[in-house]
Amino acid sequence: MTRGIFITIEGPEGAGKTTVLNMLVEKLHSEGKKVLQTREPGGIEIAEQIRRVILDTNNTTMDPRTEALLYAAARRQHLIEKVKPALEEGYLVLCDRFIDSSLAYQGYARKLGIEEVYSINSFAIEGMMPQLTLYFDIEPEIGLNRIRKNDEREVNRLDLEDIYFHQTVREGYHLLLKKFPERISMINAENPIEVVLEEAYQKIRKCIE
Amino acid sequence: MTRGIFITIEGPEGAGKTTVLNMLVEKLHSEGKKVLQTREPGGIEIAEQIRRVILDTNNTTMDPRTEALLYAAARRQHLIEKVKPALEEGYLVLCDRFIDSSLAYQGYARKLGIEEVYSINSFAIEGMMPQLTLYFDIEPEIGLNRIRKNDEREVNRLDLEDIYFHQTVREGYHLLLKKFPERISMINAENPIEVVLEEAYQKIRKCIE
Repeated sequence: MTRGIFITIEGPEGAGKTTVLNMLVEKLHSEGKKVLQTREPGGIEIAEQIRRVILDTNNTTMDPRTEALLYAAARRQHLIEKVKPALEEGYLVLCDRFIDSSLAYQGYARKLGIEEVYSINSFAIEGMMPQLTLYFDIEPEIGLNRIRKNDEREVNRLDLEDIYFHQTVREGYHLLLKKFPERISMINAENPIEVVLEEAYQKIRKCIE
Repeated sequence: MTRGIFITIEGPEGAGKTTVLNMLVEKLHSEGKKVLQTREPGGIEIAEQIRRVILDTNNTTMDPRTEALLYAAARRQHLIEKVKPALEEGYLVLCDRFIDSSLAYQGYARKLGIEEVYSINSFAIEGMMPQLTLYFDIEPEIGLNRIRKNDEREVNRLDLEDIYFHQTVREGYHLLLKKFPERISMINAENPIEVVLEEAYQKIRKCIE
């Protein structure tokens, strides 16, 4: 059976993941690569319904463990309905956020424990870990300022958290870099966009060749 | 700190759990006991939203692992917002279905593995296991016929499963009886309702005294 390659993009809000990802996909497409760009919930109806529950600004009483289980549920459904079939058809799948977001946000920043959050996500992904993860590193204040300048994007419940939370998320990602040094590769997202794009492109090239 | 007692009621659809539970609560109330009767999602807004996703008859592509994670998420929120505060106030909490439903339905009947489903539920309940579980045992065909005669209750996606599935669920419960003999107590739910009620009442009395 032909198998594709699964690459995930990680990092805080405002690190420019989506912009760079769009440019990367255009570049790879122009080279004739079979690329699928996605992010959870990715238009998968069940995963979309779950995300609406998570991001509902009225759900202020949501327990952190409930949230972590919901992210794992949405991840599972998106993986089964969208990522897995594409990999089986030989696609290069580029996914904006995956398991490391849960480990950094819920596991580390919300103090549920990286190991505990890893265990429910293991149940969700059944060993389908990405071959490569690009982590976009940026100072939280710079990232949040970028978000606030962007009128097109609605502010959701997670954006209301204070700057301290975002600093803790960054610490979480840095721990994951030490924990999974062969899978996760860091990119300095404070650099000009052309530099970030080129670095990401070279890392992907190295992975798929 | 005053601690209440947590008792769960388990068994297949149509075993008469709700009817007997209503009668039990009336009886215990009349004796002056502080009783809270509940079931997931139990009027907890976030848990209600999650249940709507699970029971939506349009969601036919739902993966069994997604379903198990959603049940665990709804369980967590109901436990934190409703069960835990009541136990801390010294209530006797009677909950219609809890972790064993996930173990029997998802773990055993849907073949995800009792141990695997137990692990995500351990994350959800953080050690808050019931002191006593009453399992209402009934032949699946008798239970399903009872449901079909009941016009007041809407048929949901789970009722559409075939009789074989319900027989497998029963096997799952019987395995759990062997696995947790000190916590789970079986009641023959094919008996006349007064007999079932009296047996359940005596088991609860023994537990709370």
